Amino acid sequence: MVRVAIIGASGYTGAESIKILLRHGKAELTYLTALPEECGAVGDVFPQLRGRCSLQIEPLDIEKLAGVADAALCCLPHKVSMGFVPRLLEAGLKVIDFSADYRLKDVAVYEKFYNVEHTDRDNLARAAFGLPELFREQIKGADLIANPGCFPTGASLAIAPLLKEGLIETDSVIVNSVTGASGAGKNPSEKFHFPNMNENIFPYGIGVHRHMPEIEQIAGEVAGTDVRVLFQPHVGPFDRGILSTVYSQPVKEISNEQLTRLYKDFYSAEPFVQVRTGAPAVKDVAGTNYCHIFVTCVKGRIVSFSAIDNLIKGASGQAIQNMNIAFGLPEQSGLA
Amino acid sequence: MVRVAIIGASGYTGAESIKILLRHGKAELTYLTALPEECGAVGDVFPQLRGRCSLQIEPLDIEKLAGVADAALCCLPHKVSMGFVPRLLEAGLKVIDFSADYRLKDVAVYEKFYNVEHTDRDNLARAAFGLPELFREQIKGADLIANPGCFPTGASLAIAPLLKEGLIETDSVIVNSVTGASGAGKNPSEKFHFPNMNENIFPYGIGVHRHMPEIEQIAGEVAGTDVRVLFQPHVGPFDRGILSTVYSQPVKEISNEQLTRLYKDFYSAEPFVQVRTGAPAVKDVAGTNYCHIFVTCVKGRIVSFSAIDNLIKGASGQAIQNMNIAFGLPEQSGLA
Amino acid sequence: MVRVAIIGASGYTGAESIKILLRHGKAELTYLTALPEECGAVGDVFPQLRGRCSLQIEPLDIEKLAGVADAALCCLPHKVSMGFVPRLLEAGLKVIDFSADYRLKDVAVYEKFYNVEHTDRDNLARAAFGLPELFREQIKGADLIANPGCFPTGASLAIAPLLKEGLIETDSVIVNSVTGASGAGKNPSEKFHFPNMNENIFPYGIGVHRHMPEIEQIAGEVAGTDVRVLFQPHVGPFDRGILSTVYSQPVKEISNEQLTRLYKDFYSAEPFVQVRTGAPAVKDVAGTNYCHIFVTCVKGRIVSFSAIDNLIKGASGQAIQNMNIAFGLPEQSGLA
Amino acid sequence: MVRVAIIGASGYTGAESIKILLRHGKAELTYLTALPEECGAVGDVFPQLRGRCSLQIEPLDIEKLAGVADAALCCLPHKVSMGFVPRLLEAGLKVIDFSADYRLKDVAVYEKFYNVEHTDRDNLARAAFGLPELFREQIKGADLIANPGCFPTGASLAIAPLLKEGLIETDSVIVNSVTGASGAGKNPSEKFHFPNMNENIFPYGIGVHRHMPEIEQIAGEVAGTDVRVLFQPHVGPFDRGILSTVYSQPVKEISNEQLTRLYKDFYSAEPFVQVRTGAPAVKDVAGTNYCHIFVTCVKGRIVSFSAIDNLIKGASGQAIQNMNIAFGLPEQSGLA
Repeated sequence: MVRVAIIGASGYTGAESIKILLRHGKAELTYLTALPEECGAVGDVFPQLRGRCSLQIEPLDIEKLAGVADAALCCLPHKVSMGFVPRLLEAGLKVIDFSADYRLKDVAVYEKFYNVEHTDRDNLARAAFGLPELFREQIKGADLIANPGCFPTGASLAIAPLLKEGLIETDSVIVNSVTGASGAGKNPSEKFHFPNMNENIFPYGIGVHRHMPEIEQIAGEVAGTDVRVLFQPHVGPFDRGILSTVYSQPVKEISNEQLTRLYKDFYSAEPFVQVRTGAPAVKDVAGTNYCHIFVTCVKGRIVSFSAIDNLIKGASGQAIQNMNIAFGLPEQSGLA
Repeated sequence: MVRVAIIGASGYTGAESIKILLRHGKAELTYLTALPEECGAVGDVFPQLRGRCSLQIEPLDIEKLAGVADAALCCLPHKVSMGFVPRLLEAGLKVIDFSADYRLKDVAVYEKFYNVEHTDRDNLARAAFGLPELFREQIKGADLIANPGCFPTGASLAIAPLLKEGLIETDSVIVNSVTGASGAGKNPSEKFHFPNMNENIFPYGIGVHRHMPEIEQIAGEVAGTDVRVLFQPHVGPFDRGILSTVYSQPVKEISNEQLTRLYKDFYSAEPFVQVRTGAPAVKDVAGTNYCHIFVTCVKGRIVSFSAIDNLIKGASGQAIQNMNIAFGLPEQSGLA
Repeated sequence: MVRVAIIGASGYTGAESIKILLRHGKAELTYLTALPEECGAVGDVFPQLRGRCSLQIEPLDIEKLAGVADAALCCLPHKVSMGFVPRLLEAGLKVIDFSADYRLKDVAVYEKFYNVEHTDRDNLARAAFGLPELFREQIKGADLIANPGCFPTGASLAIAPLLKEGLIETDSVIVNSVTGASGAGKNPSEKFHFPNMNENIFPYGIGVHRHMPEIEQIAGEVAGTDVRVLFQPHVGPFDRGILSTVYSQPVKEISNEQLTRLYKDFYSAEPFVQVRTGAPAVKDVAGTNYCHIFVTCVKGRIVSFSAIDNLIKGASGQAIQNMNIAFGLPEQSGLA
Repeated sequence: MVRVAIIGASGYTGAESIKILLRHGKAELTYLTALPEECGAVGDVFPQLRGRCSLQIEPLDIEKLAGVADAALCCLPHKVSMGFVPRLLEAGLKVIDFSADYRLKDVAVYEKFYNVEHTDRDNLARAAFGLPELFREQIKGADLIANPGCFPTGASLAIAPLLKEGLIETDSVIVNSVTGASGAGKNPSEKFHFPNMNENIFPYGIGVHRHMPEIEQIAGEVAGTDVRVLFQPHVGPFDRGILSTVYSQPVKEISNEQLTRLYKDFYSAEPFVQVRTGAPAVKDVAGTNYCHIFVTCVKGRIVSFSAIDNLIKGASGQAIQNMNIAFGLPEQSGLA
């Protein structure tokens, strides 16, 4: 049994991670931490977990942590995480970090988009990027894994086969995504007040969303060359899921049959990617770690669609998929 | 043209009142006020009113008000309103007050449920209760009208014919209501954070909701004797509307035909009440000033249902209906 | 491993049952059947199961069934089920039947409410009623278990302690429930067309809902005497969950402390019932087999609330809980 | 008073048109028609209109129509409409047609996308295209006006200033739209069954949507040259509204200030277009005839957003705006 701690367990990704680990079979929750004001019995912090988990969420005690856990899911916010990850690694744990702090290899880009100095460059340099379908080999041996952002996960899986094969113009990619409202986290705000968000859909982060450079980094690594991506997120009136519609310009004509074959081959060994022959839908993946993809040609362009659950494949599920890989467990454990 | 001011225009009931008055024809908006931090052009405060209303929302200036308005819709919160209403009356306006401050005739009940001393008892004593279907005569000559609560409006209309005719046991009434989330007002909170409220329904105010004594007061006046009401509100994942399901015990057997006839007769002259022959639905009344009602016998009890829009018949629409009556305008003006 | 077949697997309860069994650990799916026009690969019939289950849904072949399964979850519709259950039993399987066909012990009541002659009275007479919290002993030895209706499950758990202890007037019970729209099943209809159901809530089955006699039967068995129940269902704009608000008249005064203590004791050994000290919410139980309950006194009456997921504790989850009990497996298997 | 008939009044656009006309002031409803099986009192066909409109919906009688109406809103389906419009014109009415039958000037394109022979080419040739912000002069003198599709309305307004000024590459336009579910019409179907559509979002009409050539036709007329548009619609879990996100490639660098100035100037005299300085949202335009627009540069591309109500500015409101223009009424009548 891999013993798992969740650092920063009081938010939505903490709750999702707990639910998955309760069904895991080869890993067990041993320690949950949060800020003192968010501590308490799991069933009090998350009423949907009443009776299902008897742990307490406690303030972090690194010594205790070192004694009870082999892996840490670090669910702390951006900028906070890099203050804790070095200590988790020193305590001898493998760390899967949910924040952006170890995702962007170019420190200058990180510092520009997150508006803070990076204080843990050494670990950043050696962190694996936790998108298993594209970087599984890195993850296998890693003790620090940067879990990707939700939008980059869906967007990258939708176009990776095209980039890998050099089939599209690298300055032509437009990613149009719609996320459910859980992506905003648990703190109430005006935009996500039910009477404002319900029956609504709107764009946000126009031109400045922090997932834009992350998508470009992944795309560049897959393509082996710089890729320029225009990423526009929107939020819609549903809890879970991200639908990404990705437009790109092929370098030469390609048929729908060739596209479908390419994608099916590319993902043939992947347990969590389903290449479909028609439109995907977020409801088909909500509550699962799956990514559904469809690709086709329209009027000389390629349009590829992906659907994921933003809290699972876009966060907690992928983190546990990464943990499974890093610890040599069956990749689908807890995620069936 | 009746000149109308809205005092406390920056909330949901302010916005609804503005929308109705823009279509009124016989009344015109002349003055909008709010707390200084909520002032600005109407189209900036309420993006859905951009281009539709060129007024500014300004801090209240009583002298200015006296010069530009004949009627005030006072949308201030409970406890705050009674500090302003006397000044509005002194300025020579007829006032329709949206708060609870002038609804409960028994000051002790008000002070218990609202936990504050009542500071304007004289005006309370002479305020008309603005539920036109039951108290139209009072409203006609009034210069202060207490606009009813949203739940009391729907609940009272659902059982008034039974109470008026003495057909039910006066200690048997149970009102089970479900409101949409706009009832919570515009300030974000944990319960109404979209990821919490969406796909959810829950009871609240259990045993202590402030509309319970208000329903009892109305019921008692209609019945001519004390009525005891158990009122239980719930909130569901939709913007607008209240569905009330009211259970009561008939004093003697009564047929469905008799019940339907009674209700149709009772409301035959009412422009905004529709007695239906099957289940009402909140979507049939959303966006309107109508109340749909259905009544039937089930297993020896009477079950009556009503549906209203909580922001219109339950607030702004009813206020303007009251204003129309008080100023001798056609009652349906602005509300077609 | 208990080998499980699902008969009538192509509807919502079939999909939920499959999802639970995929995580079960001590039971495995071996056979799925449906009408010929609804057969196909599981991932084609239910896109959310793509890649997760490699079985085919096939037309029922009783001989094949007998060879591959120990248990049958029979998800056929009312009236159809009683034509198949005898054959499933003859094939040597233990059967958990989701329909109403084996729930109502009084054949006359069944025939009145379902408007059909009962054709399998012998099995009806010996079927266990599958509400484990109230009838676990019956279930242990049964080879035919009638899985309860969704509304009766939530309503009965909300008042069973009161009935068992004789604390309420047996003619005073009113059950007011709101269900999510998945309760309507998978066939499109006008009422459940998204533009009609969204932003709506309405009552239905007024005075005639088939779960009324079922609730009365359960209540009567728990109380040891006839109980009269007025049951009024409503449907609201959400996928999953039932909130029941139950009103009853105590035979003598009782304190909130006594009520809470009574409920906590009554359900102290139950893995799936949580007695809470405040309002329950359907979102806290959605996706789980749990029932959350709160009970209190209001103005001389007792109001008890329960929340369940209609497709899990109200159908598939409870069926698998029953199967676990009947086969001597840990009751929570698959349902953590 | 302009006397208005609605032909095919029993669907969503009929209901919206009736609601607008009830508040119009300078036009009055005189005649409503539908297929015989959809006839009846307005309040029975549309419960939300109970008590608000006393007309009957009747089978069409052309002679009666000629005597009671000056204008016809023809809400018949595609392909059906062209069988009736000639008769409405012959009866002496001005016709605003909601179908696609008179929108596409190139008959071959119509016949390809709608898969039917066009049977009224003469009227097609002379029909005005009813998008007032772009073609108001045509509409003024017209007796047949083709009301645009909902997607083309929002998409065209979002990019017209760019096309008019020749600022973008004419083969670079990508329109990504999300509509609410009312766009599907009133007939129940599997995709729009509440448990399928709720909490979901998905693309449809991939590569084949009939609004693609319509957008290209409008864009071409505005630009004065052929424009190629990739249009991808999606449907989300809300009733009303379309959000369009339009990507295009500028022919030369342009600043955000220039873009905003261009749009504000272009639409300065338009009563129903609001150029905003931040993200629009469908909830800000739901229930209104307004179009909210925002335009900005992102990474070398222009991204323009528009939000409309699909049933109002995208259908019934725009039709009445067209009627107002054609009859010389104030353009905002009924639409305030």
